[in-house]
Amino acid sequence: MNSHLYVISPSGAVRDKAAFKRGVRYLEGLGLQVEVDSGVLSSHFRFAGDDTSRLAALDRAIASGSDWVMLSRGGYGLTRLLHQIPYKRMAKAVSKGTQFMGFSDFTSVQMALLAQTGAGTWAGPSVVEGFGSVDGPDDVLESCFIDVLNHRFEGTGWRQPQEKLPSGMRHEQFHAKRLGMEAAFHLKDGLVWGGNLSVLCSLVGTPYFPQVVSGFLFLEDVGEHPYRVERLLTQLLHAGVLTKQKAIVLGQFSDYRLTPHDRGFDLKTVTNWLRSQLKIPVIAGLPFGHVRRKVLLPVGRHADLVVQGREVLLLWGDEVD
Amino acid sequence: MNSHLYVISPSGAVRDKAAFKRGVRYLEGLGLQVEVDSGVLSSHFRFAGDDTSRLAALDRAIASGSDWVMLSRGGYGLTRLLHQIPYKRMAKAVSKGTQFMGFSDFTSVQMALLAQTGAGTWAGPSVVEGFGSVDGPDDVLESCFIDVLNHRFEGTGWRQPQEKLPSGMRHEQFHAKRLGMEAAFHLKDGLVWGGNLSVLCSLVGTPYFPQVVSGFLFLEDVGEHPYRVERLLTQLLHAGVLTKQKAIVLGQFSDYRLTPHDRGFDLKTVTNWLRSQLKIPVIAGLPFGHVRRKVLLPVGRHADLVVQGREVLLLWGDEVD
Repeated sequence: MNSHLYVISPSGAVRDKAAFKRGVRYLEGLGLQVEVDSGVLSSHFRFAGDDTSRLAALDRAIASGSDWVMLSRGGYGLTRLLHQIPYKRMAKAVSKGTQFMGFSDFTSVQMALLAQTGAGTWAGPSVVEGFGSVDGPDDVLESCFIDVLNHRFEGTGWRQPQEKLPSGMRHEQFHAKRLGMEAAFHLKDGLVWGGNLSVLCSLVGTPYFPQVVSGFLFLEDVGEHPYRVERLLTQLLHAGVLTKQKAIVLGQFSDYRLTPHDRGFDLKTVTNWLRSQLKIPVIAGLPFGHVRRKVLLPVGRHADLVVQGREVLLLWGDEVD
Repeated sequence: MNSHLYVISPSGAVRDKAAFKRGVRYLEGLGLQVEVDSGVLSSHFRFAGDDTSRLAALDRAIASGSDWVMLSRGGYGLTRLLHQIPYKRMAKAVSKGTQFMGFSDFTSVQMALLAQTGAGTWAGPSVVEGFGSVDGPDDVLESCFIDVLNHRFEGTGWRQPQEKLPSGMRHEQFHAKRLGMEAAFHLKDGLVWGGNLSVLCSLVGTPYFPQVVSGFLFLEDVGEHPYRVERLLTQLLHAGVLTKQKAIVLGQFSDYRLTPHDRGFDLKTVTNWLRSQLKIPVIAGLPFGHVRRKVLLPVGRHADLVVQGREVLLLWGDEVD
């Protein structure tokens, strides 16, 4: 696996340089030829360099001819650059074999690239967040990542959390199917897209929001109270985005704090509400988000979604469509 | 001023009932005939009743024939009802003389009503937040509110915060005008619209976002870090909303916390960035938001904006257009 991986910082400044170095060493230990962009440790306010510098770093990554482009870390900084990113050149690099990987703030570029060109990317870890820990990466993340590097990552599976069906339902089988639980179905050929819910919603109504129909929309978020998650989902609902999909796939919503005022209103309330609003399955438990244990996902690729009770498989094969 | 004011709770549950009672007593003390809706103290999770009950409360307010409809408090709960609100009946009530007032979560209904019917409302206080304090209301808020009740509130003025022009500018006069400072101009006949930035942005791409051109767009928010404010403004920018306005009027952005990672990135950075992206004036310092001292604003009405250096006047007259 002597492939070439180029690392840039297009979002937040890297403050934990030790973690960054550990991450790079880990990646080198996998046999990757890691090239660290010259601006990777720059700092300008909270950003990894000013707008011009961060755009130039992205340009260098696009021109690098590398097999992989990975981010040092996420943060905030890409949405304000979306009107200046050379999507056509980026898509050309993708078609020549450069695969971009990231999540969180990078969702904005992944969605914009998909909207503007249809080119795919990987929803996956950054250097610091995925590989910078003293303990090394999570083993699930590690094995998915190595499979991706070796072009043999053809799908992923997980188990939905156990949930009670709401009581008092008459057509239990029907509702079970709507809930995507205790039912078996196979949805074919959906486009995998999504990422961070807040970032995704910040693109609605702009030219950087992909007009995907028949997709598998996956969503995650961090530090957002369930009522805010619900408000964001409501935007996608009222904008007509959700009903056009084949399934909604909920990842991990982490690091929020409930209050006494909630009186039991929580993420499960939101999930149940979402299911009551939609006739398509809302699948839960996808191991993806701002958590250590997560899989990688091929944004912009077609896949099959197989559900058997609580067990879920998302299968895309390894070939580019 | 023996007019009839109807109070409903369409958003969050009222927890501080003492404050609510103080607010009602204050309003009665002004000579208003205050009618408190039967559901005003209901509680269902974090909401003031379930969706059906809150919609029914709004229905009763619309049918009340009252002069004013005011909310007990804000919170969260209206965006998820937007597809079920009877906008035509609400607009008819407005045309017959019922004036709705609110802000924060109510921004969603104000914008949706404007988008669906063109009817206007008042951006103004709720019972608890505006009048429930032990010390009574802020005096500026009080005098504006009484003027509104007496149909003699014809405009408002404020002073922009002192700011240094960015250094190294060649065409100081031009930039001064862009900054809306140290310059004199008079913008005529702009539509006043806006409210809470997060709520407003949660409507982009939906049928509830008004397609306003040549407007004066006012914005405020609470508990949002400046980078999140910037991300929201970026959405409006990339969606083409901002450039279509005559001016952007920034209210109060309160209760957020900067971190060491920001390295000086703050609201002023965001304001300067916004001004660099736009050719229209970005006026700051509007006394409106989640703060005690604030004015009321006529959403959906035409107004003139007069700027003389740091002094700003927004003038709409008292007649409905």
